[in-house]
Amino acid sequence: MKVGIVMGSDSDFPVVEKALAVFKDFGVEVECRVLSAHRTPDQAAEFAKTAEERGLSVILGFAGMAAHLPGVLAAMTTLPVIGVPVVSGALQGMDAMLAMVQMPPGIPVATVAINGGKNAAILAIQMMALKSDDLREKLHANKVEQAAAVLEKDQMMQERIKG
Amino acid sequence: MKVGIVMGSDSDFPVVEKALAVFKDFGVEVECRVLSAHRTPDQAAEFAKTAEERGLSVILGFAGMAAHLPGVLAAMTTLPVIGVPVVSGALQGMDAMLAMVQMPPGIPVATVAINGGKNAAILAIQMMALKSDDLREKLHANKVEQAAAVLEKDQMMQERIKG
Amino acid sequence: MKVGIVMGSDSDFPVVEKALAVFKDFGVEVECRVLSAHRTPDQAAEFAKTAEERGLSVILGFAGMAAHLPGVLAAMTTLPVIGVPVVSGALQGMDAMLAMVQMPPGIPVATVAINGGKNAAILAIQMMALKSDDLREKLHANKVEQAAAVLEKDQMMQERIKG
Amino acid sequence: MKVGIVMGSDSDFPVVEKALAVFKDFGVEVECRVLSAHRTPDQAAEFAKTAEERGLSVILGFAGMAAHLPGVLAAMTTLPVIGVPVVSGALQGMDAMLAMVQMPPGIPVATVAINGGKNAAILAIQMMALKSDDLREKLHANKVEQAAAVLEKDQMMQERIKG
Amino acid sequence: MKVGIVMGSDSDFPVVEKALAVFKDFGVEVECRVLSAHRTPDQAAEFAKTAEERGLSVILGFAGMAAHLPGVLAAMTTLPVIGVPVVSGALQGMDAMLAMVQMPPGIPVATVAINGGKNAAILAIQMMALKSDDLREKLHANKVEQAAAVLEKDQMMQERIKG
Amino acid sequence: MKVGIVMGSDSDFPVVEKALAVFKDFGVEVECRVLSAHRTPDQAAEFAKTAEERGLSVILGFAGMAAHLPGVLAAMTTLPVIGVPVVSGALQGMDAMLAMVQMPPGIPVATVAINGGKNAAILAIQMMALKSDDLREKLHANKVEQAAAVLEKDQMMQERIKG
Amino acid sequence: MKVGIVMGSDSDFPVVEKALAVFKDFGVEVECRVLSAHRTPDQAAEFAKTAEERGLSVILGFAGMAAHLPGVLAAMTTLPVIGVPVVSGALQGMDAMLAMVQMPPGIPVATVAINGGKNAAILAIQMMALKSDDLREKLHANKVEQAAAVLEKDQMMQERIKG
Amino acid sequence: MKVGIVMGSDSDFPVVEKALAVFKDFGVEVECRVLSAHRTPDQAAEFAKTAEERGLSVILGFAGMAAHLPGVLAAMTTLPVIGVPVVSGALQGMDAMLAMVQMPPGIPVATVAINGGKNAAILAIQMMALKSDDLREKLHANKVEQAAAVLEKDQMMQERIKG
Repeated sequence: MKVGIVMGSDSDFPVVEKALAVFKDFGVEVECRVLSAHRTPDQAAEFAKTAEERGLSVILGFAGMAAHLPGVLAAMTTLPVIGVPVVSGALQGMDAMLAMVQMPPGIPVATVAINGGKNAAILAIQMMALKSDDLREKLHANKVEQAAAVLEKDQMMQERIKG
Repeated sequence: MKVGIVMGSDSDFPVVEKALAVFKDFGVEVECRVLSAHRTPDQAAEFAKTAEERGLSVILGFAGMAAHLPGVLAAMTTLPVIGVPVVSGALQGMDAMLAMVQMPPGIPVATVAINGGKNAAILAIQMMALKSDDLREKLHANKVEQAAAVLEKDQMMQERIKG
Repeated sequence: MKVGIVMGSDSDFPVVEKALAVFKDFGVEVECRVLSAHRTPDQAAEFAKTAEERGLSVILGFAGMAAHLPGVLAAMTTLPVIGVPVVSGALQGMDAMLAMVQMPPGIPVATVAINGGKNAAILAIQMMALKSDDLREKLHANKVEQAAAVLEKDQMMQERIKG
Repeated sequence: MKVGIVMGSDSDFPVVEKALAVFKDFGVEVECRVLSAHRTPDQAAEFAKTAEERGLSVILGFAGMAAHLPGVLAAMTTLPVIGVPVVSGALQGMDAMLAMVQMPPGIPVATVAINGGKNAAILAIQMMALKSDDLREKLHANKVEQAAAVLEKDQMMQERIKG
Repeated sequence: MKVGIVMGSDSDFPVVEKALAVFKDFGVEVECRVLSAHRTPDQAAEFAKTAEERGLSVILGFAGMAAHLPGVLAAMTTLPVIGVPVVSGALQGMDAMLAMVQMPPGIPVATVAINGGKNAAILAIQMMALKSDDLREKLHANKVEQAAAVLEKDQMMQERIKG
Repeated sequence: MKVGIVMGSDSDFPVVEKALAVFKDFGVEVECRVLSAHRTPDQAAEFAKTAEERGLSVILGFAGMAAHLPGVLAAMTTLPVIGVPVVSGALQGMDAMLAMVQMPPGIPVATVAINGGKNAAILAIQMMALKSDDLREKLHANKVEQAAAVLEKDQMMQERIKG
Repeated sequence: MKVGIVMGSDSDFPVVEKALAVFKDFGVEVECRVLSAHRTPDQAAEFAKTAEERGLSVILGFAGMAAHLPGVLAAMTTLPVIGVPVVSGALQGMDAMLAMVQMPPGIPVATVAINGGKNAAILAIQMMALKSDDLREKLHANKVEQAAAVLEKDQMMQERIKG
Repeated sequence: MKVGIVMGSDSDFPVVEKALAVFKDFGVEVECRVLSAHRTPDQAAEFAKTAEERGLSVILGFAGMAAHLPGVLAAMTTLPVIGVPVVSGALQGMDAMLAMVQMPPGIPVATVAINGGKNAAILAIQMMALKSDDLREKLHANKVEQAAAVLEKDQMMQERIKG
């Protein structure tokens, strides 16, 4: 069980790190690359074309501005591709989001929130859990932990207000 | 191998149909419901909570305006949830898109283009292909067909221009 | 006379505080919770379902990004629900505003300005004043005070300009 | 129990009608006016100033473009004011929505969706139900009916899909 | 020859100051007030209603968010009203701009750029120059000075590049 | 008393006509031209440079898309220039509005609503009324008529509702 | 002297035609293809990689939605690439425009207006005129014709107004 | 081989510098001016009118807000004009981008990303390479260097992850 992560620029790494942390928690192996859809198009295409045979299950593409990377990867594979729009430049990631989510019919990119590295990882794990009971269980546990974390803050808030 | 489709209103059906056509082509069984996150919240929650045990692999949520449905479903399951923003009302689906794609950390919704019913289905099949060689092969074949269809139009265009 | 306040994350508290200050001024009791529509959906639903019998008159929901919380609460109660979009993430609250105000027909959310905690509280008090002469009088007094504060600044400005 | 409805132009009437239908269903008396914040400012101010003493509980303001009407009414009363942005002109109601929802601190306008006449009426009734058990019961019944209507369509959809 | 300036909040003063500097340069007398369309509606209306008889030629309204002030002033006078949208809150003045420029037919507001205090003043002087040869001459001189300032910077730039 | 009207394309004429009707009502003479800032830049510049000596008091510029026309005219005159953004192309006049209202410091364009031909004319007349008692009186009369027209519709609405 | 035109879908042809008409007028040879960046990525890449050796001078890419095509072509050539965003889907070409114009540093796409097929062709000819006196002369003549067409309409307008 | 650079204000220089660095690398001579379309319209027009005879091949226009400069230059020449929208004021360059890219039919502006000084220079060089084998070779080399720089970062990233 392995995922591929491609960022269009190493300046996207702070958002990538949020995904890496989740994958580490869930024990998912990661192949992590810096490949530009525009400056290294052949390598990016090659990465996606051979992804399936290299054993990847899901690909995550991180990019800012006119963020073609996830779409370009999706063109070269039948693996699911998740797009993470990254805040970069004047338009605060709105350009990147539209350049991912508005993919024309035929080649989807599963788009998450701007800078949404964490959710991209969880989504990838939800996909892989389709064939892994271990990941499914971890997802269930994670959902319980998330709820517990909120309820703990809820408890603190109620005490703070009563204070 | 079965997917769940939930639309927030039966007025979303024309977009749902685009997904249904794809699932039919790929031989994927579909459970198709009209459930509103706001008018039938208990039934929507129940649908998602029991989705896994009912044998669903992926859930697609179609909704317009303040389109909470896919997020509300995602809150209740660890299955991957795909959100399809539907054009409805004055803002032409931009509201629905943001209400799906901008999910806060912890609970992702895999968002596709506005009215992107076809891509939602392909994305769901890409996920299910992680555990189905049959679907994987069909996806490869579908990619070849898509290319062929473009190249046929390319041929016609070149003749038309020379014409 | 009691209002319920729910924030989707404790990071929303600075905006919630603006509402708390108003409620304190008007002597309105507050039940204040941290409950996520997505990470603690059952507790959020329970909060809203039992709100009326617990004696709440109005519910305020504070959330950022794909801000489903007020809509999810409104689905579970016939009490009026006020939504406060909170600035969070790249889109500066525009996503949260649309996810609240564009509620589909049947289940309204009374939406106020982005980060508009103060106005949410005044609006809640205006609603409760429908059955409370005390609150009505305080609202009248508050309106007079607001005007007086502006006129005092107006006086200072005129002196400053004449200098 | 009476509500006041003010539309900035009689061209807003198709959206107002959606509210009128709801009020008729719930047996709520309506005072319905055409008053412009800009062309009849004195009459609009007078309407709001005397609304409380005339026995109104809630005011609904419908307007398009730079839709100042609900804010101008809210300036003159402590009754809750609901704003309904109406599609008009090139910006499809986005201008009207922002001109209502972004009210500065002190004077709230409870904003609903663009062209959201139905939800404005339900919201007004939710407010009035704070002092009317009859309206509260009708709201509960309405919620049940809304759910039933969705579930009926759900039933039809399931049959349609099964064929 | 006198202009009236009204700001909706003293927090708008930094933008007002840009206009004041221009009026001082051109020797135009200014009446400068803090009056809120919502918190002091009667005083704002009174200001505009009596503006003509007090000898004002033009009125400038500065406001942020749902910036109704210039429209509310324009409703009460036949003097030209200039609107200056001020950056305030999450939407960076876009809300204020639309709430000014999109005035419905009948009551115009002459809108300038967000935070455009300087241009508002020049525009007011251009209007008053219709009946003042002195201001007309000063405007001509100002245009020459503006050009000279650019050409001086152009000279410096050319030297810098050759450098 | 004469105004100049320049439209960037004769396709803008339907919006120009709304202004022409107002000027006719007020007895204001009009010089009406089709001049493009980009296709006939010399003629457009010449029009503005000689506008004052030809006896024009105000210039109105109508244009769509990247609507430079009013700014280009304003660069060549010290007369007030009013900009009317016209709906044209995919962005529905939002591009034209920003290209007018966001003029940089020094050269203002008094911008009105998208397709706001009527308000542009009223604004021009408000400016000219600074030196014309006749126009001032007509503006007062027009304001009374506008109010009367609204109140007549108000009367009809009240009767319609009572039915 | 030859240009390459690539459209992502044959539904873009009506916008392509506007460019073809210009190229025909200027006597520029055209290679016109339907190639999708996502469905035929290899053929699109091949087209761009061999464009220079095939004798193309400029490439025009037409696409809608998440319009990656011009960027993908630009990645594969050092010829100038012009991007034409095409209206398609719910966002009216705004998505396509951002996906073209916001190209990250290193690989530019010369973007023109949404549906701007005509301007794309003129821009391409302006580029080729750098090495063709014939095209330069035709551009000069075209500029004169454009002005003449406007001035003719101006003449008609003046007569119409005088009427 | 020479390019002309015009910035509307010297505050645009930080973005211009990015272009200057590229031109220096490629050995392209530059004529660099500060000329405002609105404050020095005659000089801006003169610059463009005489650009061809002065030996310029391409013109770059940098401007913020209602950025008319590149369009105004394009009106006066048949040389290709590249527009660089510069972040300035409240709207973060979105206004400048639309004022450049949405040029009406007949007079194109080749628009690049907001603050995209580097890409504007590369685009200009791509155009000039149509008649310069030297620049063509340098562009090929630059493409190789860009790829190498990405691949070096890719190498570092892979090592960092393996860590």
